[in-house]
Amino acid sequence: MNATLKSLVSTPQALAALIKNGEVIGVSGFTPSGYPKVIPTALAERGKALKADGVDFGISLYTGASVGDECDGALARAGIMKVRMPYQSNKDLRNGINNGTIQYFDQHLSHMAKLVRQGSVPRPTTAIIEAVDVEVHGDKARVFLAGSGGCSATYMLVADRIFIELNSHYGLALKGFHDIYIPESQPFVDVIPLKSPSDRIGKPYVEVALSKIQGIVETNMPDKMGGFEPVDAESAAIAAHILDFLAFERKHGRLPEGLPYQSGVGNVANAVLAAMAKDPNQKPLSLYTEVIQDSVFEIIENDKLIIASGASLTFSIAGQQKFKDNIEKWRDKFVIRQQEISNNPELVRRLGTISMNTAIEMDIFGNVNSTHIMGTQMMNGIGGSGDFARNAYLPIFMTSSTAKDRAISCIVPMVSHTDHHEHSTQIFVTERGLCDLRGLAPVPRARKVIEICAHPDYQPLLTEYLDYGLKNAKGKHTPHTLSRAFEFHTRFLETGTMKL
Amino acid sequence: MNATLKSLVSTPQALAALIKNGEVIGVSGFTPSGYPKVIPTALAERGKALKADGVDFGISLYTGASVGDECDGALARAGIMKVRMPYQSNKDLRNGINNGTIQYFDQHLSHMAKLVRQGSVPRPTTAIIEAVDVEVHGDKARVFLAGSGGCSATYMLVADRIFIELNSHYGLALKGFHDIYIPESQPFVDVIPLKSPSDRIGKPYVEVALSKIQGIVETNMPDKMGGFEPVDAESAAIAAHILDFLAFERKHGRLPEGLPYQSGVGNVANAVLAAMAKDPNQKPLSLYTEVIQDSVFEIIENDKLIIASGASLTFSIAGQQKFKDNIEKWRDKFVIRQQEISNNPELVRRLGTISMNTAIEMDIFGNVNSTHIMGTQMMNGIGGSGDFARNAYLPIFMTSSTAKDRAISCIVPMVSHTDHHEHSTQIFVTERGLCDLRGLAPVPRARKVIEICAHPDYQPLLTEYLDYGLKNAKGKHTPHTLSRAFEFHTRFLETGTMKL
Repeated sequence: MNATLKSLVSTPQALAALIKNGEVIGVSGFTPSGYPKVIPTALAERGKALKADGVDFGISLYTGASVGDECDGALARAGIMKVRMPYQSNKDLRNGINNGTIQYFDQHLSHMAKLVRQGSVPRPTTAIIEAVDVEVHGDKARVFLAGSGGCSATYMLVADRIFIELNSHYGLALKGFHDIYIPESQPFVDVIPLKSPSDRIGKPYVEVALSKIQGIVETNMPDKMGGFEPVDAESAAIAAHILDFLAFERKHGRLPEGLPYQSGVGNVANAVLAAMAKDPNQKPLSLYTEVIQDSVFEIIENDKLIIASGASLTFSIAGQQKFKDNIEKWRDKFVIRQQEISNNPELVRRLGTISMNTAIEMDIFGNVNSTHIMGTQMMNGIGGSGDFARNAYLPIFMTSSTAKDRAISCIVPMVSHTDHHEHSTQIFVTERGLCDLRGLAPVPRARKVIEICAHPDYQPLLTEYLDYGLKNAKGKHTPHTLSRAFEFHTRFLETGTMKL
Repeated sequence: MNATLKSLVSTPQALAALIKNGEVIGVSGFTPSGYPKVIPTALAERGKALKADGVDFGISLYTGASVGDECDGALARAGIMKVRMPYQSNKDLRNGINNGTIQYFDQHLSHMAKLVRQGSVPRPTTAIIEAVDVEVHGDKARVFLAGSGGCSATYMLVADRIFIELNSHYGLALKGFHDIYIPESQPFVDVIPLKSPSDRIGKPYVEVALSKIQGIVETNMPDKMGGFEPVDAESAAIAAHILDFLAFERKHGRLPEGLPYQSGVGNVANAVLAAMAKDPNQKPLSLYTEVIQDSVFEIIENDKLIIASGASLTFSIAGQQKFKDNIEKWRDKFVIRQQEISNNPELVRRLGTISMNTAIEMDIFGNVNSTHIMGTQMMNGIGGSGDFARNAYLPIFMTSSTAKDRAISCIVPMVSHTDHHEHSTQIFVTERGLCDLRGLAPVPRARKVIEICAHPDYQPLLTEYLDYGLKNAKGKHTPHTLSRAFEFHTRFLETGTMKL
């Protein structure tokens, strides 16, 4: 290590001690990969100690997306996280958001860096970044990021100082996987020059003034990630419906070969990609996505991966090992981008992405809830679903038709929170079937969703709601009955089931 | 006129007689400018006669956006319009939509042409296009469009035949105002090369096979457009709040000079631009917008217009005359685009547009309803508000705090239809004040909206709703009470006022 850098090596505790009360901290990390692990934990410990001494201490945390428990969980449990942006998925953090002690600003992932550069949200003054290497070139440092792009480059650009967690888990072998491009800010105008999921338009490192780097900690820790559930029958059915539909669309000339895929986080999305990997009719494919999950291995092993472009390598612990074992062989199969680029609406539209995202609930008129349980409790956040769905060539939303042993219908009269509205949705899928809603007015749309996607336990209730509105509502365009629109939800809250 | 073209000259009745039952027709026209006037009227007459003879006859109509009464009104009244896409604003058409006899598919304006080219909605087989000239070049025809871009180029591209209404109202002097660019369709990848509102990236005409043009009718008719209301006190107050805010943002370095403006249709938007025209501190400005309204004249006359780029010249009758009188002098001040380009999210984001759109209602948690009265009745449609707001540098939504002599609060606990959700909104304005919601979690957002934007008649009711939810809701992140979320609306439906 270069002498200047060596002089910066410190302990997590010493660096955590430098954070000021009320500071805005921007960290690396995306769903949850490449996030700082030891400085946030030390900061949480310090916060707890201060609290025990009766000192009020708090920070705002900006991330790429969800980060591991060592960061989100530790800071939330310590009670020192006052404000959090954007996507999260940690249990303790979620509790803090839903009991009102943590102010959560849920923002489209592609917008976060731009909002920061524009000054639309308070500026992060300290950036804490996980990296695999730092090179010194004169008065500049080149920082090679760890497993995710996130908003790291922007946080480093705007912060006064940068702390680095130098993680040897992936280590130097990861150098070269990133493609770092920060769009020019207004009033300057930038045409993002990406024309293919495999294009590299930036540099493999983030370059900053060496003087900004004010502390380095060395670590060797994997990203803390759960494994994936084995593919269940419902996920497999959803995947099969989607594959059938895509084949049907191709056959009818409405879907050109070669469009890239995006798939959201989680088991269903993973199952769809795994099914594609095994499908003998599936041609080699590109991913232009946000999280690259374990399913990519099956695609590679079936010789079907052209490129996986995303904002993070979101692998299980076993997947991380597999990636390390094959890292040289797979070097040209992956590119990690800043989330502003991986999720950019301009690029999603230009490339013609086929977008698959999971919903909490969908309503008969074509609206989707991705974020709120029963309209009030934040689950994870909107993530990139809006970035992709709004401009995709084909936006697909998927969910099981029911949850909680059928006590909940995931098809409802009106979603209790709208994250994707009827003007922006096209395809709904449950394990029961796939609904193509393109070009349909709300009422025929509702009939189709009830018939194809809803569970038989709820079909009569949904039909009764629709028919009641058609008879009684002043407007028959979207014949809601506002006094009854949430009766499924209120019944569940009162009785524990949406059934009558 | 060229001999081939002369041989195509016909009557509206003769061309209307060629339309088949069930046909999809794509027409020119945008809000309401440059729409065909005599063939649709003749088609409506034919449809009425057929109906009188007991013959069932119907068509689907695709437009750019709203078109005049000679088209939307006539076809709706004749009862032969079965399906309509996208934006509309005609009273009789709206009635048909809301009584359930017309199927209305309300789509973002920037997506319409793309959905047609992709085959995501049924293909228009006949295009009816208002033009100011047609030139013949070998086996090609160059069609010079009238007052709007709309989706005309795409409808002409995909249709089997084209009927032209050659309107001498603006006449040959309008040649050169259009810039026609059709983005390459997937799987080909197109980087739209526009870098400034004044850039011309296409051709001033639409080129098609001459053989596709199968009928021409000559007309001399203005676009049927109402005048604008004189600026009222509420619109003036909204405009003043916006101007103050923009000045404040500039002063604090968060808003660079020179970003282009978009403003929606209608009196409030018109009032804001008129106020800018008169503001001595306002520097010359560019419009990157959808409708160019009469307010542009004040901007020109105050020497403040760099360029007005939009999808239509939406001038009042007096405005149309004024434009004609000055057309040569103002030639380099206007560019008319296809709505796919004027409203393109890629370009809106790249240029850093400041976007101002009117809302029907806004809720305390930051969601906006732009389309539905009391959740069921379609007003006009989402238009371009989603295209702009979702990717603007600064999205601003504006409305009066009340309507119907204060019987309606335009700030409600929950919007009865969501067209712009909390993740995509930033600035709310009513005549009472302007709310900057950037970076705020839902609860502080709600306090601010109630305090600054709501009318005092409704502030206590809104606060009570919020506090009730904070006490009783399971999730305090967005503390709705689903059983009460629409109590403002249901009270209005029952008693005629939202007040207790």
